Amino acid sequence: MERSYDDKLKNRNFGDLFYETQYWLIFLAPNQSNIGTCVIALKRHCGSLSGLKEEEWIDFGKTVKQIESSLKKAFNPTLFNWGALMNTDYMNEKPDPHIHWHFIPRYRQKVEFGGLIFEDLYFGSMHPRPVLEISENARQMIIGKIKENL
Amino acid sequence: MERSYDDKLKNRNFGDLFYETQYWLIFLAPNQSNIGTCVIALKRHCGSLSGLKEEEWIDFGKTVKQIESSLKKAFNPTLFNWGALMNTDYMNEKPDPHIHWHFIPRYRQKVEFGGLIFEDLYFGSMHPRPVLEISENARQMIIGKIKENL
Repeated sequence: MERSYDDKLKNRNFGDLFYETQYWLIFLAPNQSNIGTCVIALKRHCGSLSGLKEEEWIDFGKTVKQIESSLKKAFNPTLFNWGALMNTDYMNEKPDPHIHWHFIPRYRQKVEFGGLIFEDLYFGSMHPRPVLEISENARQMIIGKIKENL
Repeated sequence: MERSYDDKLKNRNFGDLFYETQYWLIFLAPNQSNIGTCVIALKRHCGSLSGLKEEEWIDFGKTVKQIESSLKKAFNPTLFNWGALMNTDYMNEKPDPHIHWHFIPRYRQKVEFGGLIFEDLYFGSMHPRPVLEISENARQMIIGKIKENL
C-alpha cells in the first residue's frame, strides 16, 4: 500500500484497523450496537465488485470463514449479515467509492461484555440499527477478544 | 439439482428464475421498485457464506461482473448494492437458511420502461424501499432486457 493511500482510507471512517489478509483489511466498525461489527476493505483502490480479481475473491472467501469463525467463538452471534453498498459515497459531488464490506453479526440474545450490554433490537430485519459508539478501551477489548480467536 | 430441492427453492419466494451459471441461480426479485433487482442463490443447499467453496466464490465473482454489466447496459443504474442477510429465515422456529444474495441496482435518476416509471426514492441510503410488485408481463419484459445484455 502506498503511504498516500493509507491516508485516504483513514478519512473513510471505516474504524480501527486490527488485522489484514493478503488483499483485505479488517476494521472494527465505529458503530458497535451489534458487538463485533466490522468493515472489510480491499487494500488496493477499486470502486465496484465487478473490478475484483479472482485471487481477491478467493482470499475474501477465506477471510469470511476466518472472521465468522472468530466472532462465533468470541460472542456467539446467531447469524451474520454481509453487505457491499457504497451508497454514501455517491452522495458526494465527486464519488470515489472504495470496495468495503459491512460485516454485521446478528444476535437473538443480549451480550454482556466488558461491563456493557449489547442488544440487537431489530434481530431478524434490516431496520436501521441505533448507533452505539463506545470508548477506545472497550473497542480495544473487543478487538482483543476477536484476535484471540482469529 | 435434485428435484426435491427445486421445490424447496420455489417456496422461498426468490422470484422468477431466468438464468444460471455453474453454481448460481439468478432470479428477478418480486420487488421491482428498483428495476432489475435480482436474487442470486446457490444451487446446492448451504446455510452460511463460511460454507462456500473456492470454486463457488470464483464463479460468484464472474456472475457479479456479468450481471452488473448487463444491468448497466439495460437500465443504466448509478451503482449496485449487494447483500447476504438471511435474516428472515431466523424468524422461523426451525431456521434453514439458504445462501442467496440481494442484488439491488440503485438509481440517481428515474427510469421509464414498458410504460412504467421506476424511482429510487431513497437513493444514497439503505432506508427500506417501498414494495412494487408488477405484472407478469412487465417482469418478462425486464427479464428479456437483462438477458439481451447478459
